[in-house]
Amino acid sequence: MLKNLIESQQLDKNTIFTLFDKTDKLRVSNEKLLSGKILATLFYEPSTRTRLSFESAMLKLGGDIISTENAKEFSSAVKGESLEDTIRIISSYVDIIVIRHFEEGAAKIASSVSPIPIINGGDGSGQHPTQALLDLYTIYKEIGRIDNITVVIVGDLKHGRTVRSLCYLFGKFKDIKIIFISPEHLKIKENIKEYLKKHNIQFEEQTELNKYLPKADIVYMTRIQKERMSDKDYNKSKEIYSITEENLKLLKKTSRLLHPLPHIEEIKLSLKTEQKDKKVAYFRQAKNGLYIRMALLSYLLE
Amino acid sequence: MLKNLIESQQLDKNTIFTLFDKTDKLRVSNEKLLSGKILATLFYEPSTRTRLSFESAMLKLGGDIISTENAKEFSSAVKGESLEDTIRIISSYVDIIVIRHFEEGAAKIASSVSPIPIINGGDGSGQHPTQALLDLYTIYKEIGRIDNITVVIVGDLKHGRTVRSLCYLFGKFKDIKIIFISPEHLKIKENIKEYLKKHNIQFEEQTELNKYLPKADIVYMTRIQKERMSDKDYNKSKEIYSITEENLKLLKKTSRLLHPLPHIEEIKLSLKTEQKDKKVAYFRQAKNGLYIRMALLSYLLE
Amino acid sequence: MLKNLIESQQLDKNTIFTLFDKTDKLRVSNEKLLSGKILATLFYEPSTRTRLSFESAMLKLGGDIISTENAKEFSSAVKGESLEDTIRIISSYVDIIVIRHFEEGAAKIASSVSPIPIINGGDGSGQHPTQALLDLYTIYKEIGRIDNITVVIVGDLKHGRTVRSLCYLFGKFKDIKIIFISPEHLKIKENIKEYLKKHNIQFEEQTELNKYLPKADIVYMTRIQKERMSDKDYNKSKEIYSITEENLKLLKKTSRLLHPLPHIEEIKLSLKTEQKDKKVAYFRQAKNGLYIRMALLSYLLE
Repeated sequence: MLKNLIESQQLDKNTIFTLFDKTDKLRVSNEKLLSGKILATLFYEPSTRTRLSFESAMLKLGGDIISTENAKEFSSAVKGESLEDTIRIISSYVDIIVIRHFEEGAAKIASSVSPIPIINGGDGSGQHPTQALLDLYTIYKEIGRIDNITVVIVGDLKHGRTVRSLCYLFGKFKDIKIIFISPEHLKIKENIKEYLKKHNIQFEEQTELNKYLPKADIVYMTRIQKERMSDKDYNKSKEIYSITEENLKLLKKTSRLLHPLPHIEEIKLSLKTEQKDKKVAYFRQAKNGLYIRMALLSYLLE
Repeated sequence: MLKNLIESQQLDKNTIFTLFDKTDKLRVSNEKLLSGKILATLFYEPSTRTRLSFESAMLKLGGDIISTENAKEFSSAVKGESLEDTIRIISSYVDIIVIRHFEEGAAKIASSVSPIPIINGGDGSGQHPTQALLDLYTIYKEIGRIDNITVVIVGDLKHGRTVRSLCYLFGKFKDIKIIFISPEHLKIKENIKEYLKKHNIQFEEQTELNKYLPKADIVYMTRIQKERMSDKDYNKSKEIYSITEENLKLLKKTSRLLHPLPHIEEIKLSLKTEQKDKKVAYFRQAKNGLYIRMALLSYLLE
Repeated sequence: MLKNLIESQQLDKNTIFTLFDKTDKLRVSNEKLLSGKILATLFYEPSTRTRLSFESAMLKLGGDIISTENAKEFSSAVKGESLEDTIRIISSYVDIIVIRHFEEGAAKIASSVSPIPIINGGDGSGQHPTQALLDLYTIYKEIGRIDNITVVIVGDLKHGRTVRSLCYLFGKFKDIKIIFISPEHLKIKENIKEYLKKHNIQFEEQTELNKYLPKADIVYMTRIQKERMSDKDYNKSKEIYSITEENLKLLKKTSRLLHPLPHIEEIKLSLKTEQKDKKVAYFRQAKNGLYIRMALLSYLLE
């Protein structure tokens, strides 16, 4: 039984499917399971979307929220207080905390002193496990299985914490083949490759996107993260890979295009295509985030 | 039946009075009509007052809120996401959105992709239709009618979006006479004048405030908007028109002084006058905003 | 019967114990006493902790909240609106307001125009009466009495508003002996000393911390407030007084170490000591803040 969710590796197959079942139920339920409970969203780094998604999830379950979207600037952090002390105090006010922090490892530190559940809502270049969970859930709902699929993962694989968190989850399944496609200087890190080898997940590193699109069950696009590299590196990378009206046709009819969003130029589809072509799954994916977070909140607070 | 409220022109006389009736009922009711519904306030431009007014309205109706007061800085906008995408995602979390944005037309764009109702909480130099609605409601309650009144509108008529929105509403009524009073460089825009002509609303443009105060049923003062002009233009304009203890006496006993607030030097009345003189209606007007917004939220979510 | 809480002097012994009784009851109760009521937290100065503590208190009582954590930047204050006008408007939306402001006296000004209760959540170098209340409640719960104790108060006594507010409360009790320990340039202000003399509270001003620790029933440490002095003064002061594993042993077994938090270098205790040594009371003290604020909110709204 999980007490926190700090990194994807904590999730075993059993817990994952327990959470998916809960997610399916909560999509259609109206039960106020968390009435009387309070969630604190403690955000040291901007992410309106992740924050609002957690907050909406809590409200839909009948719970309440207290919130800060700029803890870095406005909390006692500016007076020199340690994160541990902040957590010890906030945890005496509420029942569960979602923390987002600019430093890798912050969520783990928070959980080490907290008597109440902590959820990692993204920590620096670390992880973003609820994003990975909702990605996996989306694959499961859209493709009908997780084992035995080919996943093409594209973009900034070096900085993207959602890719890292998702790979850790893939390690729990079988017969998955991953094709990583990225510019040379944004390749996936060694520790992920080692993890995949250890868990018998086949992968290869490639550079030509269009060649691999027809093989994919899932195409997982990511944004080149301007804020995590030099302007020069960014300009060199931003236009290399994109999904257009043309190469979208290379996908099998049953394949799905995912993206953790926000997207910019790496997706060049018209509004019409986004709305009508079933292969475009990233808005359904975003909506799944709400239900996955409802499931996780109720799981951790039961 | 309205689905959004983006600009005043959308409101016909019938809808306006439906909303006013609802407003009258909600002032004295305690019904939790929106229990289980969630409002997102998505503010890309500062306005604590408008935001808190909508949020309080939602809470009083039994609904819940998720909120951001600096979407410009903290949301995925900084990562280059389009407003359309932001709206598509937030709209999958909640039941209704109030958006305030620094660019004219933003609310319309938002409504074009949203499956849920959008309310324009002010868009750049565009409109602010709930302010216009509460202004009109205040006139109706204070004077007892909207047709057949003389309205003196004073101040920065060029940049003031509340004046623009209000004029569009006046166009739905009869025998209204408007006297615009402003410095030469802050005159009302041509498109408003054309609209008024087309709808047979009499108006004139004048420069002497005190001369027209005795003729007014309503004096609608506005702030010179420092943030929308050069310092030189501001210093030249700020002191030209003001309501003082002296010229307030020029108003008829049944006349009312309105202001969308915040006010600064254009109102120079003592606290005592503000509290005791029935002609000073702008705090009652602000309070009406709460009830008008309750009415609008429940109307759009029914 | 109190209508606001602006400064500690307003509280008499009877009201203090009424609040303490309420606090004891609310710790273990689940009653939604404030269902249907709305609290506005109006913060012109950063304090995530105080804000979240009030908000959590309101939610636990079944009430709702609307909130701003940067009123200074985002509200109509930037457009030049007076605090009085802001309060008059916000007070028409909600049932009670907690205000924190960077200027001494702001809460008093707010209460002078507000038809609803105002709580001072800290005003510049003024007061912080709910902090003082929770400090006093902690002394009462930890020591079993308030009369007849020796309190050693350490640190920046010149700028610390919590110390000031606490001294005003001590003035209501008997046989209290205060030992102030501070660097020469951060001594307690004259007006507090005069107040203590007038109320027959014994006090002395000393400089050697370790000499007085064995005499203390309560050691009240405070942070040197970097943000309220020059860098030079700060560097000279910050290391002078601290509680370490060693000098903590000088305290009597029944004594308690309090701190309004956040703490930095003036507390040098290990996590283990903080968790195991009963003398370390400051996290219990912080938690008491939640219950004291529940008591105060329900008291003022009854």
